Amino acid sequence: MSKHLGRTVFFVSDGTGITAEMLGHSLLTQFEGIEFHQIIVPFINSVEKAQACVERIGEVARSGNGRPVVFTTLINEEIRGAIHRADAFVLDFFERFLGPLESELGVKSTHTVGRSHSAMDVKEYQNRIEAVNFSLAHDDGVSAREFSKADVILVGVSRSGKTPTCLYLALQFGIRAANCPLIPEDFERMKLPEAVALHRSKLYGLSIAPERLHEIRTERRPDSHYASLENCRHEVGQAELLMRREGIRWLSSTTKSIEEIATTLMQDLKIGRKTY
Amino acid sequence: MSKHLGRTVFFVSDGTGITAEMLGHSLLTQFEGIEFHQIIVPFINSVEKAQACVERIGEVARSGNGRPVVFTTLINEEIRGAIHRADAFVLDFFERFLGPLESELGVKSTHTVGRSHSAMDVKEYQNRIEAVNFSLAHDDGVSAREFSKADVILVGVSRSGKTPTCLYLALQFGIRAANCPLIPEDFERMKLPEAVALHRSKLYGLSIAPERLHEIRTERRPDSHYASLENCRHEVGQAELLMRREGIRWLSSTTKSIEEIATTLMQDLKIGRKTY
Repeated sequence: MSKHLGRTVFFVSDGTGITAEMLGHSLLTQFEGIEFHQIIVPFINSVEKAQACVERIGEVARSGNGRPVVFTTLINEEIRGAIHRADAFVLDFFERFLGPLESELGVKSTHTVGRSHSAMDVKEYQNRIEAVNFSLAHDDGVSAREFSKADVILVGVSRSGKTPTCLYLALQFGIRAANCPLIPEDFERMKLPEAVALHRSKLYGLSIAPERLHEIRTERRPDSHYASLENCRHEVGQAELLMRREGIRWLSSTTKSIEEIATTLMQDLKIGRKTY
Repeated sequence: MSKHLGRTVFFVSDGTGITAEMLGHSLLTQFEGIEFHQIIVPFINSVEKAQACVERIGEVARSGNGRPVVFTTLINEEIRGAIHRADAFVLDFFERFLGPLESELGVKSTHTVGRSHSAMDVKEYQNRIEAVNFSLAHDDGVSAREFSKADVILVGVSRSGKTPTCLYLALQFGIRAANCPLIPEDFERMKLPEAVALHRSKLYGLSIAPERLHEIRTERRPDSHYASLENCRHEVGQAELLMRREGIRWLSSTTKSIEEIATTLMQDLKIGRKTY
């Protein structure tokens, strides 16, 4: 289906714009037939910047492709007021929810600009960076030295999605995620690699459809035994057998996004985010 | 300031819950004095699961620590209706915004569950994974082979924040971000490393306060020349001088989060996200 080019959408924020964009995106994906032209406008932390942004929105409005849609996460009321004067359809996230939440909690909010993705909480921030360093140092079984410090250790055949999942867990949630590949030698012995067998409660498996694995490996090493469909079928079958025998929880990454894999694993292992 | 333990907050979603959590978190950070107990409840994609969730919320409500707060991103109206019967203060994201957006756009939304962080768009997904692999392969100047394929190449002294920023750009936005350290040899020559000098338009610098760099490096290699405050001062001074001479845009990562660094550099270099 060819999409018809629809509205221009602005995500306007006093911080990074990541929250505004994510909220807006979750709404826009509900309108499948329309292709939106999306513009992030971060760091609008003064009335002057807001006015420049209103100008820019006005130009788009005058171009004749329909009234622009503006999603905002703006805390300061003056800045918010300025944006509301734009020639646009404005959906203001804080306006809709902050007031009701203040009433419910019985306290006034602090109206602090750009809190959501700032580095103000130094400890939280260091935690994330350390988790990233940990994941990098413990990628692909490179080092088993500190598996005892891991929150989770992912196992699975080569190219089943372990590395991106570990990095996402570290960056997004501050979780120390290591990973260790399951390789043909493990299948011959039908035993887990020794380094991870000691940490059974932290293990989580990723599997993948052999056809998909074949595609992924073929891009890396075309026409190899490693990438052949036959070998992919064998490895995946053996890995699933091994995980079943050892009683390791696992999921198939084939049709899941990194976010879905990470969220499912955290739920299954009852790991919470480490960042607040 | 010691925080007083406040409400329990549930983030209830038919998908990963990441959008609901981000929305809720951006609002809750506006109430600094209160510590919230936060629970993510993902994958509520049936009325039965919704009812189990309502039970769980009810238990918390009866525990006497105040009415729970519930943030929801639920597309299905039956499931949403079930959650609204919970003994809680419910802030319903789609209810508030989807209707107005439908009126504005003049079309009905598709009401598809769990679109926001799903892997349904295979091409987008592969793009992200490839960007992660690219960033890992081009971390710390390991390989300069494909710098021409990079969207951005970060430069800066060791431990200035290049690696986490690259990984975040790849995971969040599908951007191919390489990085290359600036080392004492580069300062002696007062020239950029040859491998990156060819790609000037893609370069972006990270600097950092020498005191902060000293702390970070000391954790890694205590009492080394590398970590000494004197050497950190020297390296940072030389790196900033070099970047200024070469006309490279740069920022200081000292008080910035990964999200803020990523957003600023995307704005400065006019790089958009590659994931939709």
